[in-house]
Amino acid sequence: MKGKLVTLEGGEGAGKSTVLDALRTQLSSRGIDVVVTREPGGTVFGEAVRALVLDAARTEVCAESELLLMFAARAQLVRETIIPALDAGRWVLSDRFTDASYAYQGGGRGQPVARVEDLERWAAVIKPDLTLLLDLPVAQGLARAGARGAADRIELENDDFFERVRAAYRARAAADPARFRVIDASAALDDVRHAACSAIDAWLDEQGARP
Amino acid sequence: MKGKLVTLEGGEGAGKSTVLDALRTQLSSRGIDVVVTREPGGTVFGEAVRALVLDAARTEVCAESELLLMFAARAQLVRETIIPALDAGRWVLSDRFTDASYAYQGGGRGQPVARVEDLERWAAVIKPDLTLLLDLPVAQGLARAGARGAADRIELENDDFFERVRAAYRARAAADPARFRVIDASAALDDVRHAACSAIDAWLDEQGARP
Repeated sequence: MKGKLVTLEGGEGAGKSTVLDALRTQLSSRGIDVVVTREPGGTVFGEAVRALVLDAARTEVCAESELLLMFAARAQLVRETIIPALDAGRWVLSDRFTDASYAYQGGGRGQPVARVEDLERWAAVIKPDLTLLLDLPVAQGLARAGARGAADRIELENDDFFERVRAAYRARAAADPARFRVIDASAALDDVRHAACSAIDAWLDEQGARP
Repeated sequence: MKGKLVTLEGGEGAGKSTVLDALRTQLSSRGIDVVVTREPGGTVFGEAVRALVLDAARTEVCAESELLLMFAARAQLVRETIIPALDAGRWVLSDRFTDASYAYQGGGRGQPVARVEDLERWAAVIKPDLTLLLDLPVAQGLARAGARGAADRIELENDDFFERVRAAYRARAAADPARFRVIDASAALDDVRHAACSAIDAWLDEQGARP
């Protein structure tokens, strides 16, 4: 595969949308042909799965079903969008990817790490080349996200859930510093965006990536 | 768990609906309190998953996503319906269960058996106490099913697919004769129904199940 997979991760209210737009612009300005996608979703089928798994009315959905649906959408996204793009030399920038399942379904819901690893191996297949983690205190993120209106089923979880999500994200970043760049997302949004762009710029230079 | 899980399996046009009704009546006549369900589906959430995975327009859905969706619906059905019913001493009669994933996603789609076994272990959790397999030649089943009208995404597969499904079903039955009863479904529907009722009656006698 000739392209690279860059993923953006983080909790509620971390500023992912703003950063995603900035990263897209940054990559394009380096002459990189970039495909932007999101999870869960990113394909017609995956967006239908997203609607199902995030529906705030489905309070009965068990943790196992949630995990399986996330990987069902991901398996399709990888095969329909990501691998063909990478094979064609394009880069893919994804708003969340498998790390989100380790954080939300693993850390948040308590699904065993080995279970997520196994699904990653055969359903997701590929791993990101670079992951930017937008990290900020849970209370601050929820305050920002709360200003945005209607919450989905996962956003309706309690603070303890999001503390576990954050801890799982940070543990993954600490365990794989070669792939992760942790961005302090508690700063003003302009500063977060600037830090993310600097991080990807430095990484691109390290890679010698000047297409 | 005080109740028993009885499952009915078989390919297209095997007469499952007719046999299911007869089995329900048969169990009830023995004084057994029986809950009837179906797969994929059986819960509000699972029926939404069913609509997604069987939608004939979604020709792009990959085999991995299909397998994951089947187990997402099953995980919910087991936790929301089957285990509570069995715990309450009720019996559950299900139109398809995990054997269908071994047959359709394993045999039909070529997903590895070990993958299905792993999902069975943590997502489905429970195994049937008795499984009736309605077996008939593929061409005969498809001729019967074809008379029924609009086919779903899986029913639109070719004959080779259904031959692999049948072979996988028969192999599973041969490997576990204690759990399976194979019914010749190529006979007239009345005879198929009679054979299924005789099989469950004999099994109930073996179990000493006279609640």
